[in-house]
Amino acid sequence: MARHLHLGAFIRPISIHTGAWRYPGAYADANFNLAHMRRFARALEAGKFDALFMADHLAVLNMPIEALKRSQTPTSFEPFTLLSALAMVTERIGLVATASTTFDEPFHIARRFASLDHLSAGRAGWNVVTTSNPDAALNFGREDHMEHGDRYRRAREFISVVKGLWDSWADDAFIRDQASGVFFDPERLHVLAHRGEFLSVRGPLNIARPPQGWPVIVQAGASEPGRQLAAESAEVVFAASSTLGDGKRFYADVKARMDVLGRPRDSLRILPGALVVVGETIEEARAKRDRLDSLVHYDSAVASLSIALGHDASGFDPDGPLPEIPDTNASKSGRQRVIDLAQREGLTVRQLAQRLGGYAGLAFVGTAQTIADEMEAWIDGEAADGFNVMFPYLPDGLDDVVHRVVPELQRRGRYRRDYEGTTLRDHLGLTRPANGFFAEGASA
Amino acid sequence: MARHLHLGAFIRPISIHTGAWRYPGAYADANFNLAHMRRFARALEAGKFDALFMADHLAVLNMPIEALKRSQTPTSFEPFTLLSALAMVTERIGLVATASTTFDEPFHIARRFASLDHLSAGRAGWNVVTTSNPDAALNFGREDHMEHGDRYRRAREFISVVKGLWDSWADDAFIRDQASGVFFDPERLHVLAHRGEFLSVRGPLNIARPPQGWPVIVQAGASEPGRQLAAESAEVVFAASSTLGDGKRFYADVKARMDVLGRPRDSLRILPGALVVVGETIEEARAKRDRLDSLVHYDSAVASLSIALGHDASGFDPDGPLPEIPDTNASKSGRQRVIDLAQREGLTVRQLAQRLGGYAGLAFVGTAQTIADEMEAWIDGEAADGFNVMFPYLPDGLDDVVHRVVPELQRRGRYRRDYEGTTLRDHLGLTRPANGFFAEGASA
Repeated sequence: MARHLHLGAFIRPISIHTGAWRYPGAYADANFNLAHMRRFARALEAGKFDALFMADHLAVLNMPIEALKRSQTPTSFEPFTLLSALAMVTERIGLVATASTTFDEPFHIARRFASLDHLSAGRAGWNVVTTSNPDAALNFGREDHMEHGDRYRRAREFISVVKGLWDSWADDAFIRDQASGVFFDPERLHVLAHRGEFLSVRGPLNIARPPQGWPVIVQAGASEPGRQLAAESAEVVFAASSTLGDGKRFYADVKARMDVLGRPRDSLRILPGALVVVGETIEEARAKRDRLDSLVHYDSAVASLSIALGHDASGFDPDGPLPEIPDTNASKSGRQRVIDLAQREGLTVRQLAQRLGGYAGLAFVGTAQTIADEMEAWIDGEAADGFNVMFPYLPDGLDDVVHRVVPELQRRGRYRRDYEGTTLRDHLGLTRPANGFFAEGASA
Repeated sequence: MARHLHLGAFIRPISIHTGAWRYPGAYADANFNLAHMRRFARALEAGKFDALFMADHLAVLNMPIEALKRSQTPTSFEPFTLLSALAMVTERIGLVATASTTFDEPFHIARRFASLDHLSAGRAGWNVVTTSNPDAALNFGREDHMEHGDRYRRAREFISVVKGLWDSWADDAFIRDQASGVFFDPERLHVLAHRGEFLSVRGPLNIARPPQGWPVIVQAGASEPGRQLAAESAEVVFAASSTLGDGKRFYADVKARMDVLGRPRDSLRILPGALVVVGETIEEARAKRDRLDSLVHYDSAVASLSIALGHDASGFDPDGPLPEIPDTNASKSGRQRVIDLAQREGLTVRQLAQRLGGYAGLAFVGTAQTIADEMEAWIDGEAADGFNVMFPYLPDGLDDVVHRVVPELQRRGRYRRDYEGTTLRDHLGLTRPANGFFAEGASA
């Protein structure tokens, strides 16, 4: 049987593409409108998506004000409040919130995810981030952003503390015997008493063990310590692979690290983020994407191009081809990718700049058939276990995926026609972890 | 016209009374069952309550394990996740979450309340606490609990930072002009750049200004610095006055402090917490309360009595009257209150201990008529602007208040028959604060 794939929906910003809110028919406030969010969540659930993935930022993005003022990203709902609300208007779809191990406390994080997991009857996931935006530190009383290696060591310890707190109570700790008056069995309560390099947390957590045991652990894991941490503890990786070749290398690398650690390969799903633009024909899909890119303001677009080239592009003829660029100290491989992209697609400087200023990562642009072909090639090529879908604009771009791509994948036997279970772990085919301190169902 | 009163419902623990979960017909898991919480919230909304008040604790309560294991308090939903969920199944009732200024960050708190306020269309309130339980410190990597005076100085600064963050964006900052591509007006964005004694927070907040301008600020404010902080910044005080006399003194003290500060008296509502037990007759109500008290285990009860007396009561005859107690170093006034209570109600040692171990604060125990009489006496005596109602057991104790006490108050012209507005500020008769950095509706 052909392998099924998993689909997540990346919903903050609701479209990764900076021109999305200006697209004809787009909801300009889609990123921050509860009625729209509810509609999107229900549409994705009708499309049997595994989960909503809500990214997060702990500061307004650090971009020049001229670019920022044209972006839909500055305001958004906060993830826990939004996903708790969406839990009440959906029944099956997983709800993945991003939370930072650098700027929050394990007791708060463990509690909030446990609460979301209870409220949603087992649909919570934690996208673990260490927060790369240095502006975030300034919102939390820190002059200096924590160094990358320290952030990852703290993240590793933080995850372990959170899991320990989730395991504070045995699944059967709460007796609630009205006759004897005993509410819980003290023998089924574990006090963590953690003292480590970065954290000191006593416990117990003041909430029962989550329905999933532990909410699903999600990570991005692109860097070297990120990959290692993902191999150790992630159950879903939201990958940034932008070509099939990159995807295969990343997939093989993370799964090989798991082999070394003795973790079963199928205890981790790798889902690259992918912008999906659907047309009746390939030409129509490409025209949609060109139109979308054309809505990125040239000032912000050319700033992105200059950064990618390591060379000021503001003097280039916007409507001419990309000129020769002298060597600089910028990343040669990054620059070469940009030059290759311009040549491959025959882009003018303006089109290239708008591509980079809009969204330049993995994209599937075509008909439902060609998109399904590409997705199958990634799955069968062991470059992905599915995708974290990004929508080009809302609501049409989302509806196109749900009403056209999903049915095509279902026809091919590649995607569920209905949810097989009720929890996010069920959707992802992940087992429920045993309590680290108490044997399942046994007495202490 | 007789003054209307305000009613809040104290929902964590769902009953303050430690015997509640054992009462005949009570839901033993009422404190931690979403279906029940939804039912309660809707019932309270049908009763036109101003708000749900959700207390919070950042540690399992520090009581001896023999008492703790008989308590329903160890586990609960986390406030922001629960109230966000309840926002989706209610339409008018206010949603007040407790959050600590000692163990959280102003950026997180400002954001989460703003998000809850947006999700609920203006129904959020923040119960500001400094967290008195020293066990909480151990869950947040601190060896020592912050000293009381420091906690209040930090709280004052914290509230001011949170308000400043809520005002990051003018109400009209978001233009979202699809034609020009300008999403927001940079002139309508304020960077707080706060540097104070305890906190350093740059801003701006990454969420639009809350619908209410600022979510409603709630405090308990019993101590000297607590009263002063309440007079400065609270809009609702959840008071702990246990007699009408205490209530009048507290009310007069806080309102006088407001006069000194130049704050209008009606910009603050004082709501003492009150357990309400309703019967067809006064005798039936008292019998319900006696039965409830009798469900408190004697071991925990006598421990509470010993603390209140400053004297070990475990050797006393449980079924005899309270014996003479020799003088100790314990609070004389506190001990005298206990002795007076035993004499006034003719309680045995067991009954007295169970009263103290169950709930010993302000209680209205009687018929709908006598309870309404007492509530009116508090309102007209300037001891309260309303009450934060605590239920003796669930669901019956809650339904009794909604179906019997509220209609009686409505018949007397003391309580709304329907909500006059849509926001929590509307319910409480509080004005929407202007943005501290931008004139209303004007351009910068």
